[in-house]
Order: sequence, then C-alpha cells, then structure tokens
Amino acid sequence: MRSSVLPVAPTRGRLRPLGLDEVRITGGFWARRREVNATATLDHCRDWMERVGWIGNFRAAAQGRVHRDRRGREFADSDVYKLLEAMAWQAGQEHGDALAPQIGALTDVIAPAQEPDGYLNTAFGRPGQQPRYSDLEWGHELYCYGHLIQAGVARTRAGGEDELVKIARRAADHVCAAFGPGGIERVCGHPEIETALVELARTTGEQRYLDQAALFIDRRGRHTLADPEFGRAYHQDDQPVRTAAVLRGHAVRALYLAAGAVDVAVETADDDLLAAVVRQWEATVARRTYLTGGMGSHHRDESFGDDFVLPPDRAYSETCAAVASVMLSWRLLLATGEPRFADLAERTLFNVVATSPSEDGRAFFYANTLHRRRRGAAPSADVESPRADSGLRAPWFAVSCCPTNVARTLALLPAYLATADDHGVQLHQYADAEIATSFAAGRDVALRVRTDYPGDGSVTVRIDRSPQHPWTLSLRVPAWTAGAAVLLTDPDGARRSLTPGTATLTRLFRPGDEIRLDLPMTPRWVGPDPRIDSVRGTAAVQRGPLVYCAESVDLPDGQEVDAVRVDPSTQPEDGPDGTVVASGALVPPPDDPSDGAWPYRPLDRIGTAPAAERTGIVLVPYHSWANRGPSTMRVWLPTATTDPRTAPPGTRP
Amino acid sequence: MRSSVLPVAPTRGRLRPLGLDEVRITGGFWARRREVNATATLDHCRDWMERVGWIGNFRAAAQGRVHRDRRGREFADSDVYKLLEAMAWQAGQEHGDALAPQIGALTDVIAPAQEPDGYLNTAFGRPGQQPRYSDLEWGHELYCYGHLIQAGVARTRAGGEDELVKIARRAADHVCAAFGPGGIERVCGHPEIETALVELARTTGEQRYLDQAALFIDRRGRHTLADPEFGRAYHQDDQPVRTAAVLRGHAVRALYLAAGAVDVAVETADDDLLAAVVRQWEATVARRTYLTGGMGSHHRDESFGDDFVLPPDRAYSETCAAVASVMLSWRLLLATGEPRFADLAERTLFNVVATSPSEDGRAFFYANTLHRRRRGAAPSADVESPRADSGLRAPWFAVSCCPTNVARTLALLPAYLATADDHGVQLHQYADAEIATSFAAGRDVALRVRTDYPGDGSVTVRIDRSPQHPWTLSLRVPAWTAGAAVLLTDPDGARRSLTPGTATLTRLFRPGDEIRLDLPMTPRWVGPDPRIDSVRGTAAVQRGPLVYCAESVDLPDGQEVDAVRVDPSTQPEDGPDGTVVASGALVPPPDDPSDGAWPYRPLDRIGTAPAAERTGIVLVPYHSWANRGPSTMRVWLPTATTDPRTAPPGTRP
Repeated sequence: MRSSVLPVAPTRGRLRPLGLDEVRITGGFWARRREVNATATLDHCRDWMERVGWIGNFRAAAQGRVHRDRRGREFADSDVYKLLEAMAWQAGQEHGDALAPQIGALTDVIAPAQEPDGYLNTAFGRPGQQPRYSDLEWGHELYCYGHLIQAGVARTRAGGEDELVKIARRAADHVCAAFGPGGIERVCGHPEIETALVELARTTGEQRYLDQAALFIDRRGRHTLADPEFGRAYHQDDQPVRTAAVLRGHAVRALYLAAGAVDVAVETADDDLLAAVVRQWEATVARRTYLTGGMGSHHRDESFGDDFVLPPDRAYSETCAAVASVMLSWRLLLATGEPRFADLAERTLFNVVATSPSEDGRAFFYANTLHRRRRGAAPSADVESPRADSGLRAPWFAVSCCPTNVARTLALLPAYLATADDHGVQLHQYADAEIATSFAAGRDVALRVRTDYPGDGSVTVRIDRSPQHPWTLSLRVPAWTAGAAVLLTDPDGARRSLTPGTATLTRLFRPGDEIRLDLPMTPRWVGPDPRIDSVRGTAAVQRGPLVYCAESVDLPDGQEVDAVRVDPSTQPEDGPDGTVVASGALVPPPDDPSDGAWPYRPLDRIGTAPAAERTGIVLVPYHSWANRGPSTMRVWLPTATTDPRTAPPGTRP
Repeated sequence: MRSSVLPVAPTRGRLRPLGLDEVRITGGFWARRREVNATATLDHCRDWMERVGWIGNFRAAAQGRVHRDRRGREFADSDVYKLLEAMAWQAGQEHGDALAPQIGALTDVIAPAQEPDGYLNTAFGRPGQQPRYSDLEWGHELYCYGHLIQAGVARTRAGGEDELVKIARRAADHVCAAFGPGGIERVCGHPEIETALVELARTTGEQRYLDQAALFIDRRGRHTLADPEFGRAYHQDDQPVRTAAVLRGHAVRALYLAAGAVDVAVETADDDLLAAVVRQWEATVARRTYLTGGMGSHHRDESFGDDFVLPPDRAYSETCAAVASVMLSWRLLLATGEPRFADLAERTLFNVVATSPSEDGRAFFYANTLHRRRRGAAPSADVESPRADSGLRAPWFAVSCCPTNVARTLALLPAYLATADDHGVQLHQYADAEIATSFAAGRDVALRVRTDYPGDGSVTVRIDRSPQHPWTLSLRVPAWTAGAAVLLTDPDGARRSLTPGTATLTRLFRPGDEIRLDLPMTPRWVGPDPRIDSVRGTAAVQRGPLVYCAESVDLPDGQEVDAVRVDPSTQPEDGPDGTVVASGALVPPPDDPSDGAWPYRPLDRIGTAPAAERTGIVLVPYHSWANRGPSTMRVWLPTATTDPRTAPPGTRP
C-alpha cells in the first residue's frame, strides 16, 4: 500500500514520508527550478564530468591505466554517484523518460571498475596507487561508497533492481566485511556511509547494513583517526555522537553524520541517540546558523565556527551543508513531528539551496556569502573554478560536490512537502502541488494545493478525494509568522487565527471542500542576537520565508551596497517584481584611500554622518542575487543610527 | 667609519641605518624581552628543532637517508637558518659569547648536506625525493635559500667570514646560475630570496646578486606559477609588482616581496618601483590593517582580505606578517625618511611582535586574534601545536616559522631605534638606550636615552659626546599623539609644543645637554572607520602606542568578555600595574541556549538592554593577554548604546 519511491524510508517515527509517486509539484517557485534541473542541470553535470575526466576515471580503472591517468580530487567518484542518484529520482518524474538509458550507460562505465571483492574506488588500491584504506582521514573511500549506495537505493526504489543496485550491494557487502567487527575498526574521515547503509538496510531488510551503520556511529569520536591540524573536531572524531553538545568541525561532515545518527537511532529505537542529535541541532540552530539557514562560517576548514561567529562577509555557508541540513531536519521531522524542523528546512531551501543554481541551471554557488564587497569576475566557462569565490556562479569546480547535490535535492524535493500518519496528512512545505496518498487502509486522500508561495501568502487546499470518515489535515504555521496575523478558513467559510506551530483541522472532508491558509507576506525587519558581533548595528529584511538583500545593480550611479544605510523605524514595503523597498539613504564612501591613511581614529574626532537624502532602497530576494551580472551585495544593512561617519580621520597609523 | 653590523645596509636612501655596535638597548620593555630571547628562546628553538628532527634532516641528507627519514614540512630547513640568523645578530651583543661555537656546530651539520653545485635543500633533489625545482609553487626551495643567505649576511656583518658565509655564497651562486637569464625563468611561490640577494650584493659588492634579485621582482606577476585554488594573488603572481595597487594574497609572502622590491628599487635607483611599493603600503595600511598593526584576515590562505574585511574574531594577523611588515616599514623609512613608516613599525612591534612570545620566551602565538570567545586549552608540551589556534601560546608548531622570526627580530631590534644622515641623528623608536655613532667625518655623537616608554611618556636624551659644530637631532612625534599635547624641552629649558611628524632641534650641543620629550600617555578611546563592518558599534582603548584589551581573568565571578559594554563618553583612566580602567557595565549573556532557539527576531520585538550597574572595566595591554592562563579576550568593546538586548527572542527558526 505504501509508496516505495521514498528518499528516506524509516520504519518508525512520528510521521510517515510520502513517495515521489504521491506528491507532484505542479507550478511555482520550485516547479521552475525542478524543470531546469531535469532538463539542463543533469546533462550539464554529466557533460562536465566527462570533460574533466571524472567519468573517464572508471574507464581508466577498467583499462588498468588509472594510476597514471586519474583526474580530479580523491572524492571525484562520489559526484558521478550523486548524479546517478539525481537521475534515479528524476527518472520516474517529469522529463525522466530518457534517464533510464543514461543511468544504464553510466552504470556500464562504472561496473568494470569494481573489483571482485566489491571494492570500488578509482583513487586507491591498484598498482601505482596508494593502498586501500591507507588514508581514512582524507581518502574518502567510504564516503564514495555512501553516495554509491544512495544512488543504488534511489534506483531500487524509483526504478527497480538493475546493475547499479547490484554494484551498490556488492560495495556494501564489502564494507561490512572490511569494517565489521574484527576488521578495520575505524571510520571514514568524511561521514556519509552511515545514512546510506541505513537506507540500504531499510530497502533490503538486511540487518547487517544497519548494524554496520550503528558501528560507524559508535566508533566516531574515539580517536580512530589521526589528529589533523584543524583539530579532531574537523572529522567529528573529538567526542562520541551521543555526548556531543553541538555540531562542530567540517559542516557537511557534521551534518551527514548527524543525519546518519538519526537514521540509526530511529531504526534501533535508540531514544538517547535521537535526543543527543536533537540537542546538537538546537544548539547549532541557536548559535551557529546564518539568517539564511546557511551553516559553516570558516573558509579554512569549511567548518562551523565558535558560537555566534557568523561573519556575513566570510560566510562559507556551503551549498552542500545546506543540502545536508535539510536532510537532517527532514529526518528529525519524521522522527518527532515537530514543525521547527520543517521551519529550518524551509528557510534553508529558499535561501541557500535555491541560491546556488543559476536561472539556467548551468552554474552554481559553492559558498553562499551574505556580503559581497567586490564585484565578481566571470568564472571560466572551460576550466574548473575555485570553490570559495562567491562573486558569480560557476559552471564547475575543482571540488564540485555542490552541483550534483543540488541536482539530487531538487529531484527528490516533492517528498519534502507532506507526510502522513494514522490520522491524516500533514503539509510541511507550501507549493502548488497534487498529493494523493492513503494514510490508512482504505483511507485514500487526494489534495490539490494551489498557491504562488512564497510570492503570495495564500494557500488553498482543495479536497479531491477523501474517505467517508473524519480525518485530520495538519498545516505548518511557519515560525516566521510570529507576531503577524495568520488566518485559516475552513470549508464552511469559518475563519480562525493561528499562531506558529501546527494547525489541525479534523472533520469529515468532502470532495470539493477548500481550506485556505493566509500567511502574512508583509516585509519585515529582522535583527540579530547581540552576541553575533559581526552584524552589530545592522538589520535585515525578510518577506515570508525569503531573506532579502541589497544588490549594487539596483543602486543609482554605480554605487556599491556598502553605501546603504537603513531606517528600521519605517517598515519596508512591497516593490514591483518581487522586490521590497526599505527606507534609507546612500552614504557613499570616499572615492579614494587618501581620505584616511589609517582607518582608526580618536572617538572624540568622530562626528556624525553627513546629511544624506532619504531614499527607497530596493531589495531583492537573496536567492536571486548575482543573476544580473557582477554586483556587490549585502543582507545585513547598517542602520543610520550606528554610522559614526565622520570628521577627517587620522593621517598616520 | 660606518658600522658594518647592519641588518639592512642600503647604499642609498634618505637615512642611514646604525649598526648593532652603535645602538644598545639598556633597559625597559624591549631589554626584558631581548634578554629572554637571548637566554631562553634561542636555546628553545634549537632544542625543538632537534626534537622534531628539522636539524636532523641535514644529517639524514648527508648520510643519504633523507628520502625516507625527512621530518617536518617542506620549508623546515628555513627555520634552522632563521635561528642561525638570530644567533648571528645576537653573537656580538649581550649573552652572545657562547653563540659563535653554537653557530659553528649548526654550520657543521648543514655543510655536508650541500651538493657540489651549491644546491642545498633537504626536501628535494635526491633519489627518492621530488626533483629539484619541480614544485616552485609550494616547494619553498628559493625561500629556504633566502633565509640561508640572510643568515650568511648576518654572520658576515656581525662575526666575519666563516663556513656559514661560504655555504650561503655557494647557494646564491647556484641560484644565479639556475635562475638567471636562460635558466629557469620563473619565481618561487614564497618570496624571500629577493631581499636576501640584495643584502648579499650589498655585503659582497657583487652586482650579479642584485641583478638576480631584480629579475625575480620583475618576473613576479607574470604567471610563471600555476594558478592555485586560492587564486594567483596568493603568490603575488597575479600582476607585476610595479603595477599592483595594494598588498594582497598570502600576507607574509606579500610583505617579504615588497621588502625585496624596496631593496631592489633603492639599489637600482628605480623611483617608479619605490613609488609603487609606497602606494601599496598606503592602501594596505588604510584598508587592510588591524588596530594592532597586524595584517592578514583570512585563515584559509593566510592572506589579506578584501578592503575593510578585518574581523577581530577571525584575525589571522600572523606573527611572521608583523615581522615582515616591520622589515618593509624600516626599508621605506630608510628610503624616504617619512615618520609614518616608523609609526606603523612601532604599532606593530608593541602590539604584534611583542604579543607573540610568552614571558619566558618558550611559547608563542602564531596567529594574533583580536577577539577570543572561548578559553584556550593548554597546548602540548611535547608535540607541535596547530598554528591557527590562538587560545594560548604554544611551544612549537607543525609550521613553526614564527618563533625563529621573533627571535631574529628581537636580536636585531636595536637597529630599528635610530638612524643618521649628513646633518645628524634621528630617533625613531623610544627605549632606554645608548647610541654612539659618527654622522659625518669627525662628527662623533654619543647619546644616552632614558625612558620607561611605553609605560611612561617622558623621554630624556642626554648628549654625552658631540662635535664642535651645530647638528640636528630629530625625534619622531608619533601619529597616535594627534590631538594631545606633546612637549619638547631643549637644553636651555625652553619648551615647545609639537604635532605628529618629525621634530628637529638644530644647535651646538654640549656634553651634558639634555633634551626632554613628553608624550601624552593618557588612555584614549579609538573608533573604527565605518567601512570596517565587523567592529561597528564598538570602541577600543589605546594608551601611547599600546592597544588594550579586556580579558576574562580581570572580570568578576568568572564572567566572559562578551559581557562587557563600555561608555566611551567617559574617558578611560590609568589603573594600577599598567592597566587602564574604562567606564562600562557587564551584561552577561543568558546561561543556556534555550534563551533563544533562533538568534534572529523581528526588530520591533527587540527591546533595550536591561539596566546594568555601571562599573569599571579593567583593561590590560593586548601584548600581555593570555599570560595568566586560559581566558577570553577582546580588543573592540561594544558600546552600551548599540546593544539591542532584548525581549525574549523567537523560539523557532
């Protein structure tokens, strides 16, 4: 009865996921992006991986020449697998018809590179290469298996058993043999295998994959890896998962590990482990998360910073960390049913995941800064770009984990919209969609969701099919509505006000019944906790779930965003074409550095800002920035009252 | 007639340096640190380099086993050379008697590792190692020669020709042969050879070393190195030295290169090149320098950030960059005579170079953050520490360039105090000292400087010997005195007020004459340029040249520095034991993260800070922080008026 096309398929938990055959996104914000993903990004990723030789690595391995011909970084195999996963999810959906043969063709390239015992990695283990598992800290061998297995699981669930599935199972069997009790009792420097093995256990029903995942979770934090210069926290090897207080170290690693820990906790009914991850999520969200939902503030090691170290101009906020954060929040939502997890997923999807790809789906942000001071230069169309320059989206990176991660996330996105339990259906994310499921035996439900969210706050849910019994429709009321009016209109036309959390409507629905949710889409000022030092004296604008930013292309006379001062005592207003207009002024910096040879001066020589004409500052959704060419950009806007602009500064240091 | 013991010995320029045999520091701030350096740090560095095998690499090379036994990073040789340079300068000064045999012993270890053609590097070129010059981007071979040659030059000038000098000359000859016209027409990824070759030319009179240095300067910026992921600016290979507008990329690399460019410009009378470096210095000081004088705000690539990207909590401010900055400023001061270069050198010496070593000279900061949010943990006494953790000073680092760089700087520090020209003597840095020189034929001068600077602002200069003709004594009036009263009392007791710049006194001095300079040592508030976003709404305290900071060990009840709010409308005052007391309050953050599950909230729900009792906040000199155990620390202190502390924050993201 239940769908099998499930990106995540827990056997326990408060909510049950719906499959990709039960939820269809039919229009709006995500439909546009998913169409581009299916028709452009998948081909783009494959073409680039052919061009830069990452697919060719498998051919070279099969032909015995990979020790001299291998291209790309040690984890290049994983991006081929992530592309396969994206293709596998998309294959059963719109524009998916051509994908099965493509998956088959890629599988045919990979298959001959697998060794008889299941080992599969183009960077290790052959004559002339480093030995297998000789560099668990940095080699990414198990990480690559993780993505291979996830691709295999996706193929199994969305397309059925084929050669890719067999390759993945052989690899998983090899992992259990090599890393099981009495084997190599260590972990991989980059978590990912954990969640993959649990999914494989869920899909195959084989306990040993789950046991191996649980082993990896338990081994982490026990110093089985060498202490790197970044510190053991980089690999989350500083302390066990179940005693850690917060996510730390390399952000993608930390978030994949936490997702895997939730999977293990759910399948083994380990409430302590689940509670540990919830605690870490709470501390991370409260102290180590950007307004966009982005995570990771260190460029050096792509890691979380200390609490409240969230510099907007050095935000790393890697796209893959956002993908991983959504994976984690989704798992926690299924396990607990608590809407706060869907709140963070929404914020992260709209403000990081949606920010990464260009409008044509052929260029990406790897890092997602909240403040760009210099206009970017056009990235190379031919050569891999550096990952940490966030001036303009780039077609491919030397470390190119993000494009394929965006691709697989957009391909499986419909699954994040809704869930079911024994009493009905829950809507978590709002998009124009059709939902058809059965929440209990014989209890078939079909819903038509109509909305232009997040452009518009009105969401209409029409009941197209309903059992002849009362059931419960649940709607998430986003946390960002706090303090504003939220209205629910039931099929009888009765209206009630809602507060953030979960709104429920239990009744005997009839086909044609309409429920309407009105979310307040008035733009509003948001301020930071005073402990976030780097944005003291600034404010930002949100409208619905979208974070806005100032971008230089919207300023007059070639001015840059650092000239913007805002007046948060005046409410921002909707402007044309999805923009917001904030009240403020432009205080351009002096043209040349001779204004001050030394940028610090006695406070008593700091005057007030010169009078600047009040003007409307046009703001655009953050996810859309840099779509109109090189620009400067900032999310956090200094308030006029904190500007100590100034008498002539000192002239010598 | 002129001293030969000159750390930098230009043949042209506005001012002439004095030698280490002409200036002696006799007491006070620097004398204490120099004593510790000579009696503890030199031994400490040698002992660690024996322990971690960097000295042993030379033995292994001579014994043909270095390809398997080599220890440390690719540039480990250079730290042995920097130690030798430090020893060479110290050998003729206090506590220097035992150093000549130590230099000889180390030289005996190094000598057998040099190959017949002069090549000398323990990481490259032997069977089983990478070939010579096969990795100019990262191999540091020419960088290591640079430090070897600097050690040889120091030995020549301070001790006379010996085997070390011969090794260095053979290496330099090899460099000219290998990298001259028609040779490898490329540069080293890490500049340093340039300034070393110019010094060798100055010391030997051989033009070809200067020509080779000029070639390296001209080749830089012409893409002779591969484009690294950090971008070509990392290696300063993005554009030629003479067209660049600002220092950029890896900070130590940029500053060493600029120092070498000044050396070449001076010796070749290339005014355009000199002007280019001055322009870069100006832009860098105006936009890319911390209040402490520290440079480099990126941890990722140890590089300068964009203009005004100067986050205090992620300040890298590498100790070696400070050493290199002082080297550059000193060269520019000699070339131009402009006091602004001595101003920056003073700031950097007192607030970065002096901050690095512990009081016992056996532990060091590699990076010098301006804000520490977490108390540090004790670094290992046995194993190399990570370089970028600035919680507590560490005895040694895996990348341990800084300790030996501090050691050589302290050893040659007296040379930075004063210069001469045809008309007299110039005092640039104030310390209790004796100066004896001859500024022109028969014009012998001896000066006794008495001061407790920077503890006290009174500087007395007694004339102990003077020619029977009028001459000019020049005194730098620091830029930091701007707006405060500076008084000069001449030998007749006449007083005059001074403004920042250079004060001159031209007269017929007689032995026993005393000149007194009174510098204003009242602590004062300093504010940042509004373009430095990361310190908006904060102020810092300086007293004389010293930057102050709040440190948790001075706060009551185990509070952390992030609780500090200050009131800059009240002037800070001197406290006991060199402290300063600022008016402010303590607004401790809530104890636990449940205060806010999400650290951003609607601005209209942000209230004002709770009333907090006004109290005196004790501040200590920044250079002394972390000398009393683990602590939190901050230089930039939020002002109470910018604290939006607050009604209960939102509870969900």
